[in-house]
Amino acid sequence: MTRRVKNILFVMCDQLRADHLSCFGHPTLKTPNLDALAARGVIFDRAYVQSPVCGPSRMSYYTGRYVHSHGASWNFVPLKAGEMTIGDHLRPLGVRSVLVGKTHMRADLAGMSRLGIDPASTIGMRIAECGFDPYERDDGIHPYSGHDPDPNYNDYLRKQGFDGDNPWEKWANSTVDDEGRIRSGWFLKYSNRAARVPDEHSETPYITRRAMDFIAEAGEQPWCMHLSYIKPHWPYIVPEPYASMYKPEDALPVVRSEGERRDPHPVYGAMMNHRVSRTFSREGVRDAVMPGYMGLIKQIDDQLGELFRFMEARGLMETTMIVFTSDHGDYLGDHWMGEKDLFHEPVIRAPLIVYDPDPRADATRGSRCDALVEAVDIAPTFLDACGGVAVPHVMDGRSLRPLLFGKHPSDWRKHVVCEYDYAFQDSRIELGTPSRDAWLRMIFDGRWKYVLAEGYRPMLFDLASDPHEFVDLGAAPEHEHERQRLHEALFRWARQPRQRVTIPDGAIETMEIQPRISEGGILIGYWDEEDLAEARKHFKPRFASTNPLVKPTLDRLIHPEGATHDQ
Amino acid sequence: MTRRVKNILFVMCDQLRADHLSCFGHPTLKTPNLDALAARGVIFDRAYVQSPVCGPSRMSYYTGRYVHSHGASWNFVPLKAGEMTIGDHLRPLGVRSVLVGKTHMRADLAGMSRLGIDPASTIGMRIAECGFDPYERDDGIHPYSGHDPDPNYNDYLRKQGFDGDNPWEKWANSTVDDEGRIRSGWFLKYSNRAARVPDEHSETPYITRRAMDFIAEAGEQPWCMHLSYIKPHWPYIVPEPYASMYKPEDALPVVRSEGERRDPHPVYGAMMNHRVSRTFSREGVRDAVMPGYMGLIKQIDDQLGELFRFMEARGLMETTMIVFTSDHGDYLGDHWMGEKDLFHEPVIRAPLIVYDPDPRADATRGSRCDALVEAVDIAPTFLDACGGVAVPHVMDGRSLRPLLFGKHPSDWRKHVVCEYDYAFQDSRIELGTPSRDAWLRMIFDGRWKYVLAEGYRPMLFDLASDPHEFVDLGAAPEHEHERQRLHEALFRWARQPRQRVTIPDGAIETMEIQPRISEGGILIGYWDEEDLAEARKHFKPRFASTNPLVKPTLDRLIHPEGATHDQ
Repeated sequence: MTRRVKNILFVMCDQLRADHLSCFGHPTLKTPNLDALAARGVIFDRAYVQSPVCGPSRMSYYTGRYVHSHGASWNFVPLKAGEMTIGDHLRPLGVRSVLVGKTHMRADLAGMSRLGIDPASTIGMRIAECGFDPYERDDGIHPYSGHDPDPNYNDYLRKQGFDGDNPWEKWANSTVDDEGRIRSGWFLKYSNRAARVPDEHSETPYITRRAMDFIAEAGEQPWCMHLSYIKPHWPYIVPEPYASMYKPEDALPVVRSEGERRDPHPVYGAMMNHRVSRTFSREGVRDAVMPGYMGLIKQIDDQLGELFRFMEARGLMETTMIVFTSDHGDYLGDHWMGEKDLFHEPVIRAPLIVYDPDPRADATRGSRCDALVEAVDIAPTFLDACGGVAVPHVMDGRSLRPLLFGKHPSDWRKHVVCEYDYAFQDSRIELGTPSRDAWLRMIFDGRWKYVLAEGYRPMLFDLASDPHEFVDLGAAPEHEHERQRLHEALFRWARQPRQRVTIPDGAIETMEIQPRISEGGILIGYWDEEDLAEARKHFKPRFASTNPLVKPTLDRLIHPEGATHDQ
Repeated sequence: MTRRVKNILFVMCDQLRADHLSCFGHPTLKTPNLDALAARGVIFDRAYVQSPVCGPSRMSYYTGRYVHSHGASWNFVPLKAGEMTIGDHLRPLGVRSVLVGKTHMRADLAGMSRLGIDPASTIGMRIAECGFDPYERDDGIHPYSGHDPDPNYNDYLRKQGFDGDNPWEKWANSTVDDEGRIRSGWFLKYSNRAARVPDEHSETPYITRRAMDFIAEAGEQPWCMHLSYIKPHWPYIVPEPYASMYKPEDALPVVRSEGERRDPHPVYGAMMNHRVSRTFSREGVRDAVMPGYMGLIKQIDDQLGELFRFMEARGLMETTMIVFTSDHGDYLGDHWMGEKDLFHEPVIRAPLIVYDPDPRADATRGSRCDALVEAVDIAPTFLDACGGVAVPHVMDGRSLRPLLFGKHPSDWRKHVVCEYDYAFQDSRIELGTPSRDAWLRMIFDGRWKYVLAEGYRPMLFDLASDPHEFVDLGAAPEHEHERQRLHEALFRWARQPRQRVTIPDGAIETMEIQPRISEGGILIGYWDEEDLAEARKHFKPRFASTNPLVKPTLDRLIHPEGATHDQ
């Protein structure tokens, strides 16, 4: 039996913390379907995203490139037309890449206009959808009825009798209070109440069914489907039975210390001052939110169970690589923060599970891998699984398949990097930082986490002695050595360019281009005919130009004609 | 009289050293026409190119971006489709950007194919020509008759009776020896002999006339013409009277010391071992080459005199900004090197002269400016001169106009940077460096020049005590402080991203985007209706969304309806 990768199911959750799956150790939130996937695949215990917010993190997943390389540094920054995505890399291999769900992509309309690309053309649609063909796009954030586009999910809800301009908001993301009044799921206070739609009509089951629709229709062409759930991202609201499945006491204890609020790093201090951070630091907020957040995750796990059974019944588990991950985590009040604007473990550690049907992966099934892995490794893994040639001149990441096959490359990375452009945030305005300098960059070697903050002292955490990251050693004189070491490693990272994307490294390595140029006609540095004749004796055949005119021309240059004769 | 910039004449020579113009101090090579331009404009004494070779240097001129940003790191690396060039920036301002001469551009055909752009379309042609509309392209390097394309200049020569497959090579870049035999100008030995065409039919006058043709035809639309001479680049061969105008003793003395060959930095050592370096270090080579090189420069100066008089006669000097520069210099045997693969002053210092007709520039006419200026400043200068808004999120450089107007911005740069990707060179093969690590990066603060060489110790030169750069202090313990300082400055440079090109900095600075987002509909971190009602009191009007649906929706969220009523 040859179980080779034909298809790829690339599942992403939004804002799912790694520690909220039972296979990652959650004591009360049981995720048996993901646990079962992990039992057939590998759990990556030290997988990190490239940015703590949706847009840039996703663009790194979709391009295999650091934010430093692709440039889409925040949610509303379009990925520039021309950046290569998973779809671009897999298409020449005959693999169809499709989107079911969210990408958080902003289309680079100015770039398309400059390049003469019609946004309504196939290529234009792909540029606007991170390289995927949109089977069902649903970015899920539609607080006003004037939103554009009206997602298909709204149409679906209306057909089920959930009416209005924006049933996504009015029904799926609203609840009813004890007095019978509709309350918006945007308000955290209502996160522990049931959504106004039954489970089957809520967004996660809807999107899952759409994924099944695609699979049923896909036919024989290999595919890579990006099944991208909006949840457990806010609004943190879920229907029954999930809404009342968890109590506040089922939640992991909040991780924060009073010490963190005493004289914090200025950027951290400003971020603790974001409204969402202040709200999550209030008494009672977590008690309302955690049941909703956990219920949303439980619902995803149940739905993935449905999907996996659907695939199993069609024999697709034998031929489909499955990657499950998230674009980032959620502070949920940890470290006196809400949302995801810094680099603590709850935010940047990804819940990564990879199932590879290839028999070479049998050796690692059910195991955990502690290699330092990054979001940029996903696209190279897909390229590898589909039989493509690695493109290290384009992608910053590396294929995970050696790790999946039980190998541990000796040159595997020693650090992960995460970047955050907080130019768009209140904290930048509060601090008065120019937008161009509002950058934070983190490097983590598995123990020491160093954060370079333009214009401020760095931050430093020792996760060995301080696993909760309570003690910022960024100014501690005794740790100057660690700071310098990681600072230098970050420089090494920053100067590894991934902008020379138009010539593969392999072409350079094998052509030994300078001799080729010499034979090819740019005759640099020859004194006279004898010089060239002598040099030609040493040209290796494989360097020789394929131009049939080269040899006679060089011959002629070496054996000059008479001028009068030649005229 | 308002003398405003309407047109731009952007003259570039190839491989012209700054010290080979009389206005830059050459004692015997008189360049009165460029000297006269300098007398009306400003000489930049400390202007530096972004890379010591043609392709990447030119792409930095054409994009306003460091090699680190644009990625076209060597001659044969295509500038990726989507990179914005001078043409892209000036076109929306109504300015037509045209090419007359050389760009060394390689078209990104793979990128165009991926983006569905026909290379034969207008946009495709521009992508293939660095954003310029090609009026006359001539890259000049055509050693074989199988070259593609056959330049118009070849047709021109044939019409004058200079026949053959490749008259560029056979006539314009060949000579006749004392025995009447045709000798190729590729051989350095013949550089002091006359080309086989008369002056008027040689390449520099031909290209100059083509520039005049364009001007005569241009009509009323403002233009930016890139007049890009192939010369004094090799083949170092020029017709009479220039061929016999200079003697070896007219040349600047060679700058090299025996000390440089003793235990050199490994990369420098490998580059001294390039064939062209070995050839230029041989006795007699400079004596043959220098007369040809100097004659080619003199010919350019004479031709520019013709062009300037042509423009003067049409009143164009009143409305045309003129920039004269070069893509890099030439070792010509200095430092035991040929060509241009490292960062010594003869190679990276550009002969930059800028004439701005604007009356605000009257204060600086005929003056010299010692600000640290870079090739990336040219595109922003053009954008500024044409009335465009600066794009610091795209361009690494800054407009020179404040300097031209006699101002000295207090935040002007303190360093220049030059990069070299030697992956394609013999030296990399000799050293066994992986192609991805074959990077050299230089930072220079006007006195100290620091070169970071991946995998090797750095180089360091103190131009105050050692103006000829003979003494590499890269390993000298007493200069650790300078090395660390410049190393850190280079890191600061390397992490300034110019990849977030799709959102202008100004948009971020003025939108104060987070409050806008709050009013705009993503209601992050509100506990309940009261929270939102309170926050809305503090929204400043200018942050308010322009979406007419926002206010009623927020009103409704705060004042919930009855569920039964609403259904």
